[in-house]
Amino acid sequence: MSNNELSNLGQAARQASFALMSLRRPQKDALLTSIIDGIGAAQEEILAANGQDLADARDAGLDDAMLDRLLLTPQRLEAICSDIQTVIGLADPVGEDIDSKLLDNGMRLSRRRIPLGVVGVIYEARPNVTIDIAVLALKTGNAAILRGGKETRRSNLALVAVIHRALAEHNLPQAAIGLIDNPDRALVAQLLKLDRYVDMIIPRGGAGLHQLCKEQATIPVITGGIGICHLYVDVSADLDKALAVIENAKVQRPTVCNALDTLLVHADVAGTLLPALQARLAPQGVKLLGCARTAALIEAAPAEEGDYDREWLSLTLGIKVVDDVEQAIDHIRAHSSDHSESILTADMAVAHYFAACINSAAVYINASTRFTDGSQFGLGAEVAVSTQKLHARGPMGLEALTTYKWLGVGDYTVRQ
Amino acid sequence: MSNNELSNLGQAARQASFALMSLRRPQKDALLTSIIDGIGAAQEEILAANGQDLADARDAGLDDAMLDRLLLTPQRLEAICSDIQTVIGLADPVGEDIDSKLLDNGMRLSRRRIPLGVVGVIYEARPNVTIDIAVLALKTGNAAILRGGKETRRSNLALVAVIHRALAEHNLPQAAIGLIDNPDRALVAQLLKLDRYVDMIIPRGGAGLHQLCKEQATIPVITGGIGICHLYVDVSADLDKALAVIENAKVQRPTVCNALDTLLVHADVAGTLLPALQARLAPQGVKLLGCARTAALIEAAPAEEGDYDREWLSLTLGIKVVDDVEQAIDHIRAHSSDHSESILTADMAVAHYFAACINSAAVYINASTRFTDGSQFGLGAEVAVSTQKLHARGPMGLEALTTYKWLGVGDYTVRQ
Repeated sequence: MSNNELSNLGQAARQASFALMSLRRPQKDALLTSIIDGIGAAQEEILAANGQDLADARDAGLDDAMLDRLLLTPQRLEAICSDIQTVIGLADPVGEDIDSKLLDNGMRLSRRRIPLGVVGVIYEARPNVTIDIAVLALKTGNAAILRGGKETRRSNLALVAVIHRALAEHNLPQAAIGLIDNPDRALVAQLLKLDRYVDMIIPRGGAGLHQLCKEQATIPVITGGIGICHLYVDVSADLDKALAVIENAKVQRPTVCNALDTLLVHADVAGTLLPALQARLAPQGVKLLGCARTAALIEAAPAEEGDYDREWLSLTLGIKVVDDVEQAIDHIRAHSSDHSESILTADMAVAHYFAACINSAAVYINASTRFTDGSQFGLGAEVAVSTQKLHARGPMGLEALTTYKWLGVGDYTVRQ
Repeated sequence: MSNNELSNLGQAARQASFALMSLRRPQKDALLTSIIDGIGAAQEEILAANGQDLADARDAGLDDAMLDRLLLTPQRLEAICSDIQTVIGLADPVGEDIDSKLLDNGMRLSRRRIPLGVVGVIYEARPNVTIDIAVLALKTGNAAILRGGKETRRSNLALVAVIHRALAEHNLPQAAIGLIDNPDRALVAQLLKLDRYVDMIIPRGGAGLHQLCKEQATIPVITGGIGICHLYVDVSADLDKALAVIENAKVQRPTVCNALDTLLVHADVAGTLLPALQARLAPQGVKLLGCARTAALIEAAPAEEGDYDREWLSLTLGIKVVDDVEQAIDHIRAHSSDHSESILTADMAVAHYFAACINSAAVYINASTRFTDGSQFGLGAEVAVSTQKLHARGPMGLEALTTYKWLGVGDYTVRQ
């Protein structure tokens, strides 16, 4: 695929977005139902393609975790279809008037929710994301250009073929969902500059991909996904309950972005809490790193330069003893990735002070950091998790795939 | 100012934003009142600095329009203070809960409006913008880093000194409003990459500045300001009233971004409308450019390649005769800058079809394009006009200087 072909893909997606943007919810839901039916009908074809991808990936020496993310099974396809059914059940945000007022000159002025247009998504070797993003885009009347990991090439082709058949069945342009079927990394850089046709870039991958997008894109990028998450145990916290929350935040699923990375403990309760914590977490394989004050209380490897700036994605937990909530806030401001932070406290004033001072995408009082997630937040679906300030923050649902226009209705109204 | 000094300015602004973000409205309004008082007290000093800037600008051969934009007078300072008073009167969006719900697990989850943090603004030689942006930023609890045109250097220093005295008076860090007092253009490129400290970049200038920001920034940029605005006269329009709207859109203030650039006329009324339009606009100095069908009806210079892609900012009007609303929509989609478009029609179905198909920042039915403006829209103040899709569209008021965080309040709630 040449730069010119990519530009054509963009132009076709833009053109297709004009057909999608005025679809009503029943038409969009019927299209998504056709995709469910299509996945069922093409199951053998999809699994065969996936099998070839897997064989190649094994030969290439990909690790078990990556192979597992690549794998499709009849059960996983069923789960994907069940997720599409969930999206069908969600309300359509498009067409909603955010607000509406009558101006003094008689003009009725509304902000009306509309699709973004064309969304570019760059992701790794996870074939489920292909369907996921296409479905969320179509539900909100957007076209999408997909760039998946090269290891899932055949699986993605088979899945996009299903989507294209469904689009054709509903007399919609297949270019509504475009796939960059070429592993050349230069095409990513070119996609990031296709601002003439693409309205938003969503990177779904590691820190490197997000950095690349921030640096190279001339299109607005939703950055996020990296969670250096903190939990502060205040002097007034119920320590028994605190142990359960810390365990949940760290151990329940350590490999995800909303898992706990650094525990901050008020000095006056550290002597009680930390030994109990070690007794509880050590048998579960949690490795503790700590400051000097931590190491004076429990066995913990010394936290080294940069350890408090790492997203662990594993059973490692950084610990720091602090004098008060101020020190906890200072530490979070210096080290957070603006994802999820929590305070455990019985003190109303301290809780509200913490919540007022920390402006991460998600801030919790007396809860685990693990809740930062579209389904936990009741959004029904998750496009991505944003840790930047513009447009959308935290888990992004369907609304984040829309924007608005001002609509003014007058009676040949002129400006005085 | 070195790269390092700019980084220090950014860091200090970020630190200052922590002090600003929890201010309550009365504190912020008191600060703004101090700025009004400070401008009054420093009037002579400000006017003297401005006089020196003007003298240098005259020597440098700046044209009258630029000199006029640079000029401060006692009356203009009074108008600036009156604008600050208006901002003081506006509601503070910070702290508002956008929505709030009780999750099944008992957690109360809200989206709470918060300041963006630090806003970087790059603008031209207009000293009023210095106060304008500082006041809007402070009202919403944001810090700002200002980079004004080099021709207003002394005026900006005098105005920022007033702001710094007001901040000091209220025990707030002066770094809340930082000024890049150095004409070196390399600093703009560096500011655009200061993503560690700056949350949003607002360019206020021409197409070149917006392009530079899109290409170089690693910080989200609000692009906009360029308006290639269209008005389509449908076959069913009241032609007498249409003439008045076209005149308003083109002639009332031709140098601004919401002025009309291209008139699209349904072929069946072109023979009636265009001669009457020429008779009405020619005496006012409007120069008409048109397609071949236009030239067959009235005296109009032929529209050349690219003419329909120009923002005229002058008394030139492009005209194109179209067969129907579809052709009008196609033309707008191909040539619009997504700013403001209007349809004049008596036909409800055509009006709604046009409004559904055109997704520019502002779309009008039976009204002039000249309304796309913060004060006309009742926003009370205007930060910028966005023509991009993310975060904010069209005239941006105080709300566009805010974002939100998710706040979850539980009872030691853990994820199942």
